Amino acid sequence: MNDTQNSLSIAKACSEHMYRGDHCSRMLGMVVDDASPGYAQLSMLVRDDMVNGHGNCHGGMIFTLADTAFAHACNTRNRASVAVSCQVEFLVAVRAGERLTATATEQFRGGRNGVYDVRVNLADGSCVALFRGKSRAIDETLLDSSQEK
Amino acid sequence: MNDTQNSLSIAKACSEHMYRGDHCSRMLGMVVDDASPGYAQLSMLVRDDMVNGHGNCHGGMIFTLADTAFAHACNTRNRASVAVSCQVEFLVAVRAGERLTATATEQFRGGRNGVYDVRVNLADGSCVALFRGKSRAIDETLLDSSQEK
Amino acid sequence: MNDTQNSLSIAKACSEHMYRGDHCSRMLGMVVDDASPGYAQLSMLVRDDMVNGHGNCHGGMIFTLADTAFAHACNTRNRASVAVSCQVEFLVAVRAGERLTATATEQFRGGRNGVYDVRVNLADGSCVALFRGKSRAIDETLLDSSQEK
Amino acid sequence: MNDTQNSLSIAKACSEHMYRGDHCSRMLGMVVDDASPGYAQLSMLVRDDMVNGHGNCHGGMIFTLADTAFAHACNTRNRASVAVSCQVEFLVAVRAGERLTATATEQFRGGRNGVYDVRVNLADGSCVALFRGKSRAIDETLLDSSQEK
Repeated sequence: MNDTQNSLSIAKACSEHMYRGDHCSRMLGMVVDDASPGYAQLSMLVRDDMVNGHGNCHGGMIFTLADTAFAHACNTRNRASVAVSCQVEFLVAVRAGERLTATATEQFRGGRNGVYDVRVNLADGSCVALFRGKSRAIDETLLDSSQEK
Repeated sequence: MNDTQNSLSIAKACSEHMYRGDHCSRMLGMVVDDASPGYAQLSMLVRDDMVNGHGNCHGGMIFTLADTAFAHACNTRNRASVAVSCQVEFLVAVRAGERLTATATEQFRGGRNGVYDVRVNLADGSCVALFRGKSRAIDETLLDSSQEK
Repeated sequence: MNDTQNSLSIAKACSEHMYRGDHCSRMLGMVVDDASPGYAQLSMLVRDDMVNGHGNCHGGMIFTLADTAFAHACNTRNRASVAVSCQVEFLVAVRAGERLTATATEQFRGGRNGVYDVRVNLADGSCVALFRGKSRAIDETLLDSSQEK
Repeated sequence: MNDTQNSLSIAKACSEHMYRGDHCSRMLGMVVDDASPGYAQLSMLVRDDMVNGHGNCHGGMIFTLADTAFAHACNTRNRASVAVSCQVEFLVAVRAGERLTATATEQFRGGRNGVYDVRVNLADGSCVALFRGKSRAIDETLLDSSQEK
């Protein structure tokens, strides 16, 4: 494998590792659509049990999807990273039955710090939320050495 | 009833109305501990299915609890209000089995806009997350006129 | 003029109008490099009187440059808009003598609301700060009808 | 001196040290009203050269005052700390001639990280902006050992 293929292979292995351990994402029915270095896309159906007191998808569910896409994106280089702060703009109300897709892209990486932007879209491509997350790397890897090959 | 008692009574009725319609909060096992004008406290047990790929409580679950406390606090005056943007600082990792308490207090209210701060604490009173939410009032009430009495 | 040329002409006229009235930007030595619908680029030299107690460019000066680029970008359609909230990530310390360039791009526009992202770069293209601003349109125009022609 | 007096004395010395080196704050006419451990209050007159293209005080000037109060508050323990991210809510437009007061209070401190909230008020006590800043300590002190006595 060349370096690019190897980086992509590690990114996908890290994302699978994250997903296996993430009981919360699975409880909410998220699926990983794609992952590559500094990038991840996840999607989720808005279920009836995700609706809030105004009859719309709970903002916390939109946030959780975006936060999970961010977590995958910032952990694609086999360097364990955690979220330190996040910000979300709720742009449009979302109803039950919609399928949400969150796409996370790396904006900055330096030292232990990273900044990632996430767009949450409906199936028609319209944007319902914008999210920005800051990550910090800790001194751990996600994969053991055999998985890195 | 005097004005203060009436405001408190409306706040509690609004919070109960929010809770009844909020399938998401109930799915996650949240309970409302208290509500008064511009204020709400909710709590939640961190269940095993709320854990993320690093073995900690998913940030989205902490956010969802804080966001719900914010939603209750900004809807305590029978004027329907929605979240427009939120920011969260994750200070300390949280493990399954902990009970989280989120306390939302009003920082500003002017025109249709409101700003609310939420602290999320462990049972020992230590703070694990700080949240700030901005709300915007829409032209609806939560209670019908008979409930306001 | 076709529609695209007309939109571009209005954007530049709005930006010039903003700049003429903006005593603060001129006091700080900012210049407008470019403006088009939903977009603006401004730059500024970090002067000795912009340095803080740690010997670096004051974060407030970096913010002010980014905020001004945001203000220009969200006012390029001749609909007066004001900043309601902003967030900034300071990534790298900046020294006096550096020239900063802030580039603002529209991320979302719907109803009265807009979201704009700004990157602040050094002359070598490296990013020193990421900024996100939310705007809200008010019921005013910037240009009088003769200027719109 | 007892411990409390000593902490207060160090806080005031740190604030004076910050102020002496901070050319930017002095250029903008800020004064330090008060400083104690985890706390600082600064004020500033909104001058004619701080007005933006809408005829109001430039948001960057309000931010810079709040950011400086935050910088003083997070540097009151003689452990040099820098701002990593900040968020501001602009609540009410401010005119030239107003005197702004920014009051920064510590919300959290753990390891190298701190969270500080700043309220910016007019002379009549009404709030015009809410600011939240995150700091990170670096391995330096502000005072030399003779000043700590």
